[in-house]
Amino acid sequence: MTEADFIAALRHIADTPAARGLADDCAVLDIGNETLVLTHDSLAEGVHYLLGHDMADVAWKLVASNLSDLAAKGAKPVGVLLGFMLGDNDTRFIEGLTEILAAYDVPLLGGDTISAPGSPRVFGLTALGTATHSPPPSRSGAQPGDAIWITGPVGGAMMGLEALRAGAGSGAGIDSTAYRRPIPLLAEGQALAPVVTAMMDISDGLLLDASRIGTASGVTMAIESKAVPIAAPEDRRADALRWGDDYQLLFTMPAELTPPVSAVRIGTVERDHGDGPLLIDGRVPAADRPLGYRHQHLAPRHDAPQG
Amino acid sequence: MTEADFIAALRHIADTPAARGLADDCAVLDIGNETLVLTHDSLAEGVHYLLGHDMADVAWKLVASNLSDLAAKGAKPVGVLLGFMLGDNDTRFIEGLTEILAAYDVPLLGGDTISAPGSPRVFGLTALGTATHSPPPSRSGAQPGDAIWITGPVGGAMMGLEALRAGAGSGAGIDSTAYRRPIPLLAEGQALAPVVTAMMDISDGLLLDASRIGTASGVTMAIESKAVPIAAPEDRRADALRWGDDYQLLFTMPAELTPPVSAVRIGTVERDHGDGPLLIDGRVPAADRPLGYRHQHLAPRHDAPQG
Repeated sequence: MTEADFIAALRHIADTPAARGLADDCAVLDIGNETLVLTHDSLAEGVHYLLGHDMADVAWKLVASNLSDLAAKGAKPVGVLLGFMLGDNDTRFIEGLTEILAAYDVPLLGGDTISAPGSPRVFGLTALGTATHSPPPSRSGAQPGDAIWITGPVGGAMMGLEALRAGAGSGAGIDSTAYRRPIPLLAEGQALAPVVTAMMDISDGLLLDASRIGTASGVTMAIESKAVPIAAPEDRRADALRWGDDYQLLFTMPAELTPPVSAVRIGTVERDHGDGPLLIDGRVPAADRPLGYRHQHLAPRHDAPQG
Repeated sequence: MTEADFIAALRHIADTPAARGLADDCAVLDIGNETLVLTHDSLAEGVHYLLGHDMADVAWKLVASNLSDLAAKGAKPVGVLLGFMLGDNDTRFIEGLTEILAAYDVPLLGGDTISAPGSPRVFGLTALGTATHSPPPSRSGAQPGDAIWITGPVGGAMMGLEALRAGAGSGAGIDSTAYRRPIPLLAEGQALAPVVTAMMDISDGLLLDASRIGTASGVTMAIESKAVPIAAPEDRRADALRWGDDYQLLFTMPAELTPPVSAVRIGTVERDHGDGPLLIDGRVPAADRPLGYRHQHLAPRHDAPQG
């Protein structure tokens, strides 16, 4: 069974509206007089992080990637549950976990630790938040005529990972912080939630994630590649648009509005005239190059960008 | 870092009252006008289930063990999030998942699938419920003079596992259903929540779990071993009292009350006169034999009772 088959089968089970067809960053559930926002993401050794990577960074990224999903819904975090597999350098994991939970004032509510021999180690996190605006934004609300915006540059995580791979520490010119310690844009997401028509966080690459909004909304996302801010050399622009792990927010908004947070306009939502969910500089993207990174089978000891 | 060290470090982080000191079956969180009950448990191949075991049973048990934690709080399930690692026999996993979610009318809200090479496979589940009685029962409310009750026999899962190990299918005399398809006692938990002083589900063995209530409540749980109903031959009574995976509810209640569900009285809560959290037939349990099963490092291809 491929991952696509498996998710299709899950989608068949997840027929409650709260699951949003498993096609959004989070589940959204009305409980009493509140709207809960829930997400669960995992990290696996050798797939989502380099073997031998500082476990404090792994803890940070595990929490940050989930909080970023809450940010995309404009949710305020209320807590996390951790699924942990014991192994090497657990003290560093605890240190990184303590740091990020303190940084965003998010309580650890519970979880589970297991001892299992073998590899890879896998860590899961469930993050729970409450919506600050109801209904929380989805991927499916982009309207023809809307402007497309991004909160900041992409490509920084790519450069950071390459610095790490090259063995360059923070003292060697290129800083790896953007890869190691991504920032979940919680305040930005909360400010944007009332005004956007669609929003998501960019975890798998700008172009792939933009095409997902296009598909979910039944529109064409027309992106001007030169308008996209990048944190990489100009000759790496095409890579930066496809690389994941930056956790910027991508959103659409009526063209006459100005975003309440710092953001850069990178395109326009168009009616789908048969071109599909994405145009780059007016063209349908070439089929011979992936738009971003999906979950992949990878041999251990090889890292892959966020899947 | 041992598991005990790791959990002690987590406890230091989890200082919100909702986490209940990581010493309860669930986190309990007031959200708006509702009380949420949250739990996360994992299953690992070779540790929590036999390698080669029917993946439909694995899915069933993953969900059942989490719903059982909700049952112990008298919660009504509102949904689950799945952390899934792709591998062999995923179709059977989907079938088992579909079965149990339909059986208890629980929606799948979301989750995450990953592809990672290697073993063991690990599956995580977060279950979310709403309290039907507030505050939900904890482990810490048992009072001297209370009666100790159990909802049904222990030892059935032990016999089922042994039947499976012996290669005996359901046609060979001993049925393995109790091990393969445990029943979360949701209706019983909801009926009991308003009247119990303490409650938990027995996942790690009656004696170990009873001692946990004793410790959390600062009392001595005095159990009459002969009174405990067992689903095993009489000469296996001592094992049945220590084996996990039966998911009966263990609870304490003022002695003058009668439980609203079918249950058997197995002892009395006593003031702790220095004997510690547990007495069996009036004696402190011998230190040379474990009271139940804890998380353990185990070689793959060896199954262990629920840790």
